Amino acid sequence: MASDVDIHNMKSALSLACRGLGRVWPNPSVGCVIVQEDCVIARARTADGGRPHAETQALEQAGALAKGATLYVTLEPCTHHGQTAPCVEAIIAAGIAHVVIGTLDVDPRVSGKSVALLKAAGIKVTQGVLEDECCALNIGFIKRITENRPFVTLKMACTLDGKIACASGESQWITGSLARRHTHQVRSRHDAILVGCGTAVVDDPALSTRLDGVAHTPVRVVLDSKLRISPDSQLVRTATDVPLWVFGNGDDEQTSALRQHGVVIHSCDPHNLVLVLGVLADQGITRVLVEGGAEVHASFLRQGLCDELFIYRAPTLLGGDGKSMIRTLNIETLVQRYDFVRCSSRILGADVLEIYKQKDEG
Amino acid sequence: MASDVDIHNMKSALSLACRGLGRVWPNPSVGCVIVQEDCVIARARTADGGRPHAETQALEQAGALAKGATLYVTLEPCTHHGQTAPCVEAIIAAGIAHVVIGTLDVDPRVSGKSVALLKAAGIKVTQGVLEDECCALNIGFIKRITENRPFVTLKMACTLDGKIACASGESQWITGSLARRHTHQVRSRHDAILVGCGTAVVDDPALSTRLDGVAHTPVRVVLDSKLRISPDSQLVRTATDVPLWVFGNGDDEQTSALRQHGVVIHSCDPHNLVLVLGVLADQGITRVLVEGGAEVHASFLRQGLCDELFIYRAPTLLGGDGKSMIRTLNIETLVQRYDFVRCSSRILGADVLEIYKQKDEG
Repeated sequence: MASDVDIHNMKSALSLACRGLGRVWPNPSVGCVIVQEDCVIARARTADGGRPHAETQALEQAGALAKGATLYVTLEPCTHHGQTAPCVEAIIAAGIAHVVIGTLDVDPRVSGKSVALLKAAGIKVTQGVLEDECCALNIGFIKRITENRPFVTLKMACTLDGKIACASGESQWITGSLARRHTHQVRSRHDAILVGCGTAVVDDPALSTRLDGVAHTPVRVVLDSKLRISPDSQLVRTATDVPLWVFGNGDDEQTSALRQHGVVIHSCDPHNLVLVLGVLADQGITRVLVEGGAEVHASFLRQGLCDELFIYRAPTLLGGDGKSMIRTLNIETLVQRYDFVRCSSRILGADVLEIYKQKDEG
Repeated sequence: MASDVDIHNMKSALSLACRGLGRVWPNPSVGCVIVQEDCVIARARTADGGRPHAETQALEQAGALAKGATLYVTLEPCTHHGQTAPCVEAIIAAGIAHVVIGTLDVDPRVSGKSVALLKAAGIKVTQGVLEDECCALNIGFIKRITENRPFVTLKMACTLDGKIACASGESQWITGSLARRHTHQVRSRHDAILVGCGTAVVDDPALSTRLDGVAHTPVRVVLDSKLRISPDSQLVRTATDVPLWVFGNGDDEQTSALRQHGVVIHSCDPHNLVLVLGVLADQGITRVLVEGGAEVHASFLRQGLCDELFIYRAPTLLGGDGKSMIRTLNIETLVQRYDFVRCSSRILGADVLEIYKQKDEG
């Protein structure tokens, strides 16, 4: 049974961890709080790029005060020697008396190993405090480890009747400024943003994160089977500042032109999304935001690779000849429909953000 | 300035009035509360069918206790001699000391007349308490008087991507049982339910109100230019129990077959919705719920005759080749889109009811 104090401090650790989303891949985003005699003496999250880990930073802040303190951490501390010494050793060396863990490591080979080491060192261990929340926060890391793919969120902006453009194709500014600003916040919490080549060529987006005080922009990914993207596009022109990964195959000239601009080309078939997501996972990507277009969204759905929907809905109607937010799903009877579960909604000016999760994921 | 007590009692009167919606046409639904020394001594609403009026019923309940009491009424009492004596006379005769009025009569020829008569009789009058709410409640009656048409609500049930059926046309049960039950409640608060002949022929609906304890079903209206509706349909077979009005023109045989079943035929062009709504208003209808199909919904929108949207949205996707909830609106550029204002939303099991109002209506 978790105490109110444990839950309160784990919530603080979770809120720290949340700030690392999109910035710490290939590592999970972990939050850590150290409490000594009811006072919080240290707070940290996994640093940008994945290290140093939250625990080592918090222990450094705490210094000698760590002796006899309680350490809250959202994810089981690491036990393996990587670029730095394992966190478990640092915790034991600092004299922490009690470790409260949100959730165990997802890798069954290491899961529970830290708990055993800590207990063997005479440290009290409590585990499973806000476990569901701690798992949800790192669902991207968990999927990368267990399914070799990132967590996939499809993001769309549409009308009440599910349209993204009128018949002529005109589509700019369906949602208002608050919704668009919120999109930038959502982008900043993902490791990568993915679009199809139609969107890249027609809209010429920068896929940047334009928020005051947020300098971070995720990796941009374009599915572009024939490398149609122009070297003059906003995406390519900014590729030296923010990574641009293009999945597709072109002739040598196209390929070298793009590479000269700093574009990374992955020459696997972009229609096979399991392959694409496998490459992203191999590169360390844990969370990907798919921003369209309608055919790319449909492909992710048809291939069973959509975990979550972010639907920004504007209070307007465009009618039946407008362009649908999702292309054909090859549904012949209603039982084949794609079911979701409502998670939450949020009012953004005149628009509403609706968040749904894939049904089988709970 | 309305006092807290005035607002509290006017809310009671409004809640009574609300129960009359769908049942009192051609009259407005009015609520009345009489308070004597801080005690509510009478409560009434306009009776089913429109009479007796709320005030006369409440005065009857109060009897001799009405002397010196305060009477709250959502709409200015009537002054004209109709089938019964005017309410203003009854209020004066009962010795009411103070009348609190929500909103004045919409007809400029009578608006304020009661107030003058009451004041001339030495009665204190307070007006404009919860005026917006009182107007909103009788918006249907107001539109009938001022625009010669009922208030029009388009009701649809659709998916997250705005589809009402898959490509094959299969469409039953997109929303769950709670949403469907809520639809029946909404139906019961409208004077009439309207569908196109496609919906009437293909779905063969009864358009009844199936709710425990609610025996009331609104008038059913079908737009059926060639009188295609079958005498064997559920609608026609129940026409002797619940009124069925069909707008369209057929040969003598069709017409007499339908009339034999008790169907009322209005032989105006059902494509001209201003005409149709004018006939409904002439018949006394103040609130109409348009239940589709997608072409009928589009027609109401294109002709500028949609005041409100009720969208029951199921957490599912059907994809771009599914049938859109609204047919073409002939929109060529985004500025021509149909804008709405969000009023409220309500969770109904797995589904969400979204309520929007026409933007210009505020």
